Amino acid sequence: MNKFIRVDMTTMKVTTDEVPDKYVGLGGRALTSNFVADEVKPTCHPLGKNNKIIFAPGLLSGTTAANSGRISVGAKSPLTGGIKESNSGGSFSQKMAKLGIKALVIEGMPEGDKFYIVKIDINGVTIEEAPTEILGGCGNYKAIEVLSAKYGEKVGIALAGPAGEYRLPAANISFKDPEGNIRSAGRGGLGAVMGSKKIKALVIDETGAGAVPIADPEKFKEAAKVFSKALLDHPVSGQGLAAYGTDVLINILNEAGGLPAKNFTTGRIDWNDNISGETMNATIQERGGDGKISHGCHQGCVMRCSQWYADKNGKYITSGFEYETIWGLGANACIKDLDAIAYIDREMDDIGIDSIETAVAVATAMEGGLLPWGDGEAVLAAVKEIAVPTPLGRLLGSGTGAVGNACGLFRVPVVKNQAIPAYDPRNIKGIGLTYATTPMGADHTSGYCIANNILSIGGFIDPLKKEGQVDISRFLQIGTASIDSTGMCLFVWFGIADNPPAIQALVDMINAQYGLSLTIQDAVVDLGKAVLKAERGFNKAAGFTNEHDRLPEFFEYEPCAPHNLVWDFTPEEIDEVFNF
Amino acid sequence: MNKFIRVDMTTMKVTTDEVPDKYVGLGGRALTSNFVADEVKPTCHPLGKNNKIIFAPGLLSGTTAANSGRISVGAKSPLTGGIKESNSGGSFSQKMAKLGIKALVIEGMPEGDKFYIVKIDINGVTIEEAPTEILGGCGNYKAIEVLSAKYGEKVGIALAGPAGEYRLPAANISFKDPEGNIRSAGRGGLGAVMGSKKIKALVIDETGAGAVPIADPEKFKEAAKVFSKALLDHPVSGQGLAAYGTDVLINILNEAGGLPAKNFTTGRIDWNDNISGETMNATIQERGGDGKISHGCHQGCVMRCSQWYADKNGKYITSGFEYETIWGLGANACIKDLDAIAYIDREMDDIGIDSIETAVAVATAMEGGLLPWGDGEAVLAAVKEIAVPTPLGRLLGSGTGAVGNACGLFRVPVVKNQAIPAYDPRNIKGIGLTYATTPMGADHTSGYCIANNILSIGGFIDPLKKEGQVDISRFLQIGTASIDSTGMCLFVWFGIADNPPAIQALVDMINAQYGLSLTIQDAVVDLGKAVLKAERGFNKAAGFTNEHDRLPEFFEYEPCAPHNLVWDFTPEEIDEVFNF
Repeated sequence: MNKFIRVDMTTMKVTTDEVPDKYVGLGGRALTSNFVADEVKPTCHPLGKNNKIIFAPGLLSGTTAANSGRISVGAKSPLTGGIKESNSGGSFSQKMAKLGIKALVIEGMPEGDKFYIVKIDINGVTIEEAPTEILGGCGNYKAIEVLSAKYGEKVGIALAGPAGEYRLPAANISFKDPEGNIRSAGRGGLGAVMGSKKIKALVIDETGAGAVPIADPEKFKEAAKVFSKALLDHPVSGQGLAAYGTDVLINILNEAGGLPAKNFTTGRIDWNDNISGETMNATIQERGGDGKISHGCHQGCVMRCSQWYADKNGKYITSGFEYETIWGLGANACIKDLDAIAYIDREMDDIGIDSIETAVAVATAMEGGLLPWGDGEAVLAAVKEIAVPTPLGRLLGSGTGAVGNACGLFRVPVVKNQAIPAYDPRNIKGIGLTYATTPMGADHTSGYCIANNILSIGGFIDPLKKEGQVDISRFLQIGTASIDSTGMCLFVWFGIADNPPAIQALVDMINAQYGLSLTIQDAVVDLGKAVLKAERGFNKAAGFTNEHDRLPEFFEYEPCAPHNLVWDFTPEEIDEVFNF
Repeated sequence: MNKFIRVDMTTMKVTTDEVPDKYVGLGGRALTSNFVADEVKPTCHPLGKNNKIIFAPGLLSGTTAANSGRISVGAKSPLTGGIKESNSGGSFSQKMAKLGIKALVIEGMPEGDKFYIVKIDINGVTIEEAPTEILGGCGNYKAIEVLSAKYGEKVGIALAGPAGEYRLPAANISFKDPEGNIRSAGRGGLGAVMGSKKIKALVIDETGAGAVPIADPEKFKEAAKVFSKALLDHPVSGQGLAAYGTDVLINILNEAGGLPAKNFTTGRIDWNDNISGETMNATIQERGGDGKISHGCHQGCVMRCSQWYADKNGKYITSGFEYETIWGLGANACIKDLDAIAYIDREMDDIGIDSIETAVAVATAMEGGLLPWGDGEAVLAAVKEIAVPTPLGRLLGSGTGAVGNACGLFRVPVVKNQAIPAYDPRNIKGIGLTYATTPMGADHTSGYCIANNILSIGGFIDPLKKEGQVDISRFLQIGTASIDSTGMCLFVWFGIADNPPAIQALVDMINAQYGLSLTIQDAVVDLGKAVLKAERGFNKAAGFTNEHDRLPEFFEYEPCAPHNLVWDFTPEEIDEVFNF
């Protein structure tokens, strides 16, 4: 990957440069975050010409390494006002890697109201006007159809949906997946940045590109085998996720008493059977679903956690139907019907709005009296208003913090204005430290302490006690920053955490591909720390302080059933997470 | 004033203490800001039990000193997340002073949904349930009628209007004025704090209280005479304001090219005659208006800048009909009809929503396509929705920043999430420094450089150049913090700025009342600096940094007609304002 491409939307010029030396060894999040820290003015308005958005495949993307096809997107976030890396499945990352593109940067802003398509192929990058039929509220499913018909069924696509066009703070970037459905770089409103630059879609066609070059193919193949086997051999990454999807966590978290419900008023529900992974699996088995059941979000995935959820007639409703979304609507907003949740999930994908942010915003709106608790039809109708957008749609599309403020609520589950996801920080204390301290705003994926606290992966740490949590949140945030730089799905951690040879194999693949001799210390620990420091440096320059590394106050005062614990880390303890 | 009263809404207990030593020499803003800095947890949620709201008369309130009847209200702001002092006319301050009450603090929060009245009289303080007829959207005009009928026509009242009940971030606190109409502690959402504590109204009856004690009545009388004469002799404070109201500024600012219009896209309009103070005056002369024309917002005001605006039949529409509101709707939202603006102003008073924040939010909504430009009827209907509240009403009630985010705008005129008022910072550079640096969020009153930049009061400083602006913004912010501590209306500065004996007379009145021998250095400079330091200290502990002392980025890029200047202070220059 030797091309560093910049698309300047002010001048409509495309520049393809050699990769700057400082970025040669970086990929994915390491690249996007360093780039944003280097080139984006920290105090700029996220929707102005001084913000830049960067798309980068991981270091291993485009190779045969299992699960290495995630794409990282970086920019200053319109939701948090801080740095953001959001990553997604789909085919975009692998196609970029095959075309030798290390990074694609969109900068500047055009005058006028026209939207554009950026087309990338073996001949270079061109900017074209977007077809009007996919603008102004057109759903992502249709837009993918139109663009695939125009540019070829096999092209990769990154879309700003209606929410992105309207530059709503919770707009995601939607990626076409191998089946033509939707995967999302969900969090932090990056779709709004894309919309602000008047990019409706990026379309990528790797036809004619060769394979990604590998310096030592034999060594690579050997390491890839060890790595892949580790994933397949582990009960979670090899079996559990494929069978039940991420929704397997409903019953696990409910049993643990860490499943936040009714806008974080309790950690356990009695309608878990309605929305659990087991129920989903039984439903899918019964309904069939076009013959597809579990599948991967990108080619080369061996875990295949994505579920293909169909209606009673076996007709596709949604896929990538994740635990966090089902939790947000099913437990936190009390919608006790998986079909209703599936239709809302599809709608959010179609509009291009973050399903976590929006689901939590919905529950907040319910607490504020804007929507009736548990009413799936009312929620579907409200979510559809985002695509219009009505004032209610704009409010929901502004995210949980905005809805909480507009409803005058004290109980608003956000950190750095990003919604807290599906694990209660009072009863699962490690994840609370991650929410509080990650530069991303509340984000479970940036230091997934559920591994240790609940799944006993990487060593068990009692979720109910403070001991060990600061260290594990720090450890996982560092490791995750590295994994996010490889193009690997975060879930690989389940397979390799307790398998040192598999961790070595991951580093070996990087060494074999690039002809390097990095150690785990180099490729995981030092890299991860450097990424986090760049991210925190950006945030500090944007005006963030340790006072922003705090959970909402209500967690300190309201005990969470069934363990009846409160959030009890002191500011000093929290600040120890970033002590390096 | 020897009573320091705390009302604990958690326990429903009232405590009356001696004034703590450290607060004895403080009044108004000096007291509210020091108290908030001392007792409110800076990182608390503004609508939670850890916020406290304090009402304090000025040092000279309740005396015969001209224009000394302003009340200060302090708390952590739901709009900015920082410290807030907002002050207002009405009769509340003088009645508190006569009852010997230095401060009234509301703390804690009750369980349940009931709203309460806090009744204050010579026998002490009681908490009563609020009559249901004034709850749930009942306008302030009716609430004042009901409460005056119940508690006596002469009582003072402080109200959380519908916006405050709903805890909207732009809710103000509405004070009954001598004519039974409405004055507002407008900015920063303090009505929402009152609403969060379930206080619908404070009612005060000073019957039976004696006069405010004066240590040296002769000296006081003499100083008061010098002071009052200075106000009356000055062409602005003695004549201009009474004749034309603050709306006299429309033509002055338009001529200066500093009247922001169409959401800050230009500094001059051609429909200024439709909305000017001269037109207002002519209209009032023609229509009569219940026989009242200019009048004061509180007893003892000698400037009488408030205008009594009536309809074509001479029937009262609104009073306290200020330049900033008329600018916001008339110039910035392009509503070219003074009657239409008057009805919207009345509605905002009735709902209890900050008329500056809301007017600027309206123009932002127009830029975002939520409302048609210049359509007074549509705006009146939209503002009425705040009292329901519909989603649009909640969005408008959330303030300009929220509307800007929900519309995906880059051009959002806020500092610290508070709307920028009626003076363009590109073409009037001094006021831009005040907007950027005051701990209050964008606020013209906290360092009114218009005095020097436009009115040539206190020495002329060219508004179009950078020279001298840092010093004058600092000087005025310090002086204003002191004036806000006396209970004096800020406009007294017009009368005394160029009249050293009058400044001395202000200090002499304080000395005579309290038996002190303060110098101007003590009572103005040192006190003002100490207040600002306390306020900035609170904000820093709440997470604010110098990066929050910045104007929105668009001012740096869009030249403002007719002078075509941009905002060009560097961060380092801005940070020099607070160099003490």
